[in-house]
Amino acid sequence: MTTRRAMLDVLKGEPVFPPPLWMMRQAGRYLPEYREARKKAGGFLDLCYNPDFAVEVTLQPIRRFGFDASILFSDILVVPHALGRDLRFEEGRGPLMTPMSAADVDRLDGSSFHQRLAPVYETVRRLRAELPQETTLIGFCGAPWTLATYMIAGHGTPDQAPARLFAFRHPEAMERLLAVLVDYSAQYLIRQIEAGADVVQIFDSWAGILDEATFEALCVKPVAEIVRRVHAVHPDVPVIAFPRGAGTRYDSYRQKTKVAGLGLDWTVPLSQARQLQAGGAVQGNLDPLRLVAGGRALSEGVSAILDALGKGPLIFNLGHGITPDTPIEHVEAMVRQVRSFSGR
Amino acid sequence: MTTRRAMLDVLKGEPVFPPPLWMMRQAGRYLPEYREARKKAGGFLDLCYNPDFAVEVTLQPIRRFGFDASILFSDILVVPHALGRDLRFEEGRGPLMTPMSAADVDRLDGSSFHQRLAPVYETVRRLRAELPQETTLIGFCGAPWTLATYMIAGHGTPDQAPARLFAFRHPEAMERLLAVLVDYSAQYLIRQIEAGADVVQIFDSWAGILDEATFEALCVKPVAEIVRRVHAVHPDVPVIAFPRGAGTRYDSYRQKTKVAGLGLDWTVPLSQARQLQAGGAVQGNLDPLRLVAGGRALSEGVSAILDALGKGPLIFNLGHGITPDTPIEHVEAMVRQVRSFSGR
Repeated sequence: MTTRRAMLDVLKGEPVFPPPLWMMRQAGRYLPEYREARKKAGGFLDLCYNPDFAVEVTLQPIRRFGFDASILFSDILVVPHALGRDLRFEEGRGPLMTPMSAADVDRLDGSSFHQRLAPVYETVRRLRAELPQETTLIGFCGAPWTLATYMIAGHGTPDQAPARLFAFRHPEAMERLLAVLVDYSAQYLIRQIEAGADVVQIFDSWAGILDEATFEALCVKPVAEIVRRVHAVHPDVPVIAFPRGAGTRYDSYRQKTKVAGLGLDWTVPLSQARQLQAGGAVQGNLDPLRLVAGGRALSEGVSAILDALGKGPLIFNLGHGITPDTPIEHVEAMVRQVRSFSGR
Repeated sequence: MTTRRAMLDVLKGEPVFPPPLWMMRQAGRYLPEYREARKKAGGFLDLCYNPDFAVEVTLQPIRRFGFDASILFSDILVVPHALGRDLRFEEGRGPLMTPMSAADVDRLDGSSFHQRLAPVYETVRRLRAELPQETTLIGFCGAPWTLATYMIAGHGTPDQAPARLFAFRHPEAMERLLAVLVDYSAQYLIRQIEAGADVVQIFDSWAGILDEATFEALCVKPVAEIVRRVHAVHPDVPVIAFPRGAGTRYDSYRQKTKVAGLGLDWTVPLSQARQLQAGGAVQGNLDPLRLVAGGRALSEGVSAILDALGKGPLIFNLGHGITPDTPIEHVEAMVRQVRSFSGR
């Protein structure tokens, strides 16, 4: 069993055996105790603002699997919500917002931002008190570009065409939107750290959909600025970024954003991932469907990652969130396999 | 104006100024003459098997823009259809098939494959006769993995989870399915070449969704085998492959598949694309939404590609298909800008 220290050591670039282990979306519907808690509770968004529920479901996977890290139960879209954009979640449709025009950018209202997010800070405080001392607590936010994709389209899309087109047609409005999101996201992470988060992670789920020029302007630059602002206040708190789909651009992304940890999606080849370890910790990157399938698909996938990356600074994780149809026994098998890795 | 020879020269690795130019999905709904022809005609699938219609709409963008290459109007899913899988297209929903089980793999029936695809071969023959001599005629097929994603899910999905899970759960059935698709796809391309195609392109739209091991097994290996079989019969006909989203893996993909041309999606950084030109021609890679937006987004996007790649072997193209909402004037502006590139 590794310790809270261990994850922080890995984020400083020091390998730990076995590597610390957690799963994106580990508090979720694949767990019967989560489904049970969810039954008694209200709508998804209400739950993000309900510390009793959020603390309980965040603790569930730690109790069951003893993961090395715990990530706050919440949603990336609470940030635009706290800036006055409407937001609701519909079963089977995901998040729905009123699509945003260029003119709406200047109407974003952060006057009650921290007040609206107070329940999240409360959740973090209670989690730090209730979690085992050895469990690292991860706070998080969405990256400005990924938040912008939902704010502009009003819902998830397969290729983020509305936000890409907005960026091409209204470059100044896009720049102002990202600046507002950078500002409040940095404040949001700082407050989470002050409430007890040991590490913060920035999710940029739609980084991979942009061309070279827009990737630099819309992904790299805003995240670099958030990291700079967080480190200006809390220089020792490591930041992990997950620019999903960044492909060839992962290396320059780390150099430019100065993140300590790089979350790798499952399409990153392990030879590339090993090169990336020269610049610091990597986190990932098992295809979540290997965990659904189990058997050889799972054990071979886990082995390949441990063999390629286990001797360097690695936080073992999935390459994306765990899916609701994942059998618990497969998670148990994965945990056993990772925990049996001695680095030899 | 470049010539038919020019595109073939580029595919041999020799730069041509200005670079040859065409657009993926150039016969399509952004053209008023296409929408007009479409009104009088039947369902989409019928049109793929209707040489009168297919020839007419294939010629439309050549008449209007004088593109250097013409790509056969058809659909990648005619191959599974000719192997006995049902297929229909619904307005706004895209292709629909009956989802395929592992047991269905051994029921694929190629006994009337070429008979069912005879109208496609007829279209190619008539196109070669009717196209200007200087226009390169491109035949095409879908890559086995991409065909498999539709055959297994029965429809398009954002992450191809059904086919990925099928590959993990039924690796032997997946291997047999890909072997059948390799066999018939190679035959299909060979027949298109014999009907008059100068070049063939293999579309692997979903290459980018796989992890390292499955990318090798499901994308690289089958395409390499198709290229080998085509070259065994027609060693001088260049093959272009478009493994969309291959990211870091584009370089090894070219080496292993031995394709002459590599289609690059718009997320490939131009510095990487320039390195890829050391191995031969690249084709791409303007974000199609820059063409929708027009103005500076378009001119800057075109300039960036010409500046970075124009002195090497380049076929100018979009990084994905043109979208129906693209203004004709933007296409005209792009054509003018590309045609004015002198290599200096």
